[in-house]
Amino acid sequence: MTNLDGRAVARQLNQMTKLKADALRQQGIIPSLAIIMVGTNPASLVYTRNKERLATELGIQVEMKTLPATATEPEVAAAIEDCNQDPQIDGIILQSPLPNGLPEDQLSQLILPAKDVDGLHATNLGKLVQHQAGDYPIAATPQGIMGLLASYDLAVTGKRVVIIGRSRLVGLPLAALMQNAGATVTVAHRQTQDLTTLTRQADILVVATGQPELVTVPMVKDGAIVIDVGINRVAGQLVGDVDYESVAPLASWITPVPGGVGPMTVASVLSQTVQLAQRRGAR
Amino acid sequence: MTNLDGRAVARQLNQMTKLKADALRQQGIIPSLAIIMVGTNPASLVYTRNKERLATELGIQVEMKTLPATATEPEVAAAIEDCNQDPQIDGIILQSPLPNGLPEDQLSQLILPAKDVDGLHATNLGKLVQHQAGDYPIAATPQGIMGLLASYDLAVTGKRVVIIGRSRLVGLPLAALMQNAGATVTVAHRQTQDLTTLTRQADILVVATGQPELVTVPMVKDGAIVIDVGINRVAGQLVGDVDYESVAPLASWITPVPGGVGPMTVASVLSQTVQLAQRRGAR
Repeated sequence: MTNLDGRAVARQLNQMTKLKADALRQQGIIPSLAIIMVGTNPASLVYTRNKERLATELGIQVEMKTLPATATEPEVAAAIEDCNQDPQIDGIILQSPLPNGLPEDQLSQLILPAKDVDGLHATNLGKLVQHQAGDYPIAATPQGIMGLLASYDLAVTGKRVVIIGRSRLVGLPLAALMQNAGATVTVAHRQTQDLTTLTRQADILVVATGQPELVTVPMVKDGAIVIDVGINRVAGQLVGDVDYESVAPLASWITPVPGGVGPMTVASVLSQTVQLAQRRGAR
Repeated sequence: MTNLDGRAVARQLNQMTKLKADALRQQGIIPSLAIIMVGTNPASLVYTRNKERLATELGIQVEMKTLPATATEPEVAAAIEDCNQDPQIDGIILQSPLPNGLPEDQLSQLILPAKDVDGLHATNLGKLVQHQAGDYPIAATPQGIMGLLASYDLAVTGKRVVIIGRSRLVGLPLAALMQNAGATVTVAHRQTQDLTTLTRQADILVVATGQPELVTVPMVKDGAIVIDVGINRVAGQLVGDVDYESVAPLASWITPVPGGVGPMTVASVLSQTVQLAQRRGAR
């Protein structure tokens, strides 16, 4: 078993991002990410601050747009529209979760596809599912996972891939990316029967459920690659959706939590922000 | 084994379509489908004439836009744009296949999403994959398959579904529809290893490859539902992608070719044309 070291690979990606951001600055373009945050979810605050700090190091400007927890749907929509219109902003994140009652899924569709750095707009996901050529934003976590596998030369073509979880941010776009890369993909979810039989067939098992240590030894094929997208706080400790201690000896490769997928997600968001800035003229 | 009688179910759907079309006519709206055909592929001609005849019976106007086989990409794009602009046209089909050299995939993206009766636009497929609520066109063959299963009260939730073929018109949207309905879906394709092991797990096996009689007895689980999307002409006879004679005794339900999925596809296109006409005011 070997760890897939997301921190190390993310560091390399971040270096590339910094070089590209520096080149843009020389042309007078400052890559810029707007984060719209409604209310003050403590976990979001920590996550966003970390993202902001790293972005600044890499030469990306972050504009925090903070709305009160009492903000209405039209107020959030107006904040998104302001960012859509602002030629200085390259990428827009609507920070999840939104306070109760705000329709996160619908609001995210208001982000201009060309600035949709989280790849949440139907048009961007549709292009990905159709395997369209060309430049369009793709969700960061799936991108990060593909980048992590690629950096260890782990091939995907022809492999059986099982993804547990069908979220717009992870499961759905990752299924498309994996399928486009030639994998045979199955997405499992709450209604899936006999999950263990299914996951035991996976050459690559990806878990993105938010259920702490859902995946245990009997669910994993000997020699599988195990990708754990979960970050759960349990009794003050961060644990993934995979029971790392017991599963790791079985796996050929596995992502630790923390230090696996997480750093790749942040690095991918920032890398993509710079890519969007490179296309600023074409918007 | 029982046949899924696509002709009978399509007849019922067509009756509903006719009632809706009649109601629209009373409001002065004539549901209208534009078919853009480039060149004279003989199979397309037959298929299109049949569609036109049935549409007329149901009270849907069909406008054939025929371009010569020598038409250029800008000429086809202009024909699409004319239909986009024409307020009397509710649905637009770019008839496949296009003559060699014309970028069918890109051209289909020029169809206004609200008139994209084949569900080929990235925005419409993306909405489907994201399981968005609301009205948007969905590819006809997948819709027809879901309608056929529903009309026989065959449940999809929790079932293992294997789809062979990942086309934009069938495999990709069907995978989304099935997944949205609670199935656990695997899409198989050219790069899939050990196809037989995979297909033998399918409670519902859908085959859309265009390879005559690809699916044979060892690939089918006892009691499976087998949906054959293929229509191939072999030695003057129409055969599906499934070896019907040998597989049928094993299956609980199976679609014959012809008379299974085919009639459902045509009925679904026309049904959806009327739905698009019902939304004409909202365009």
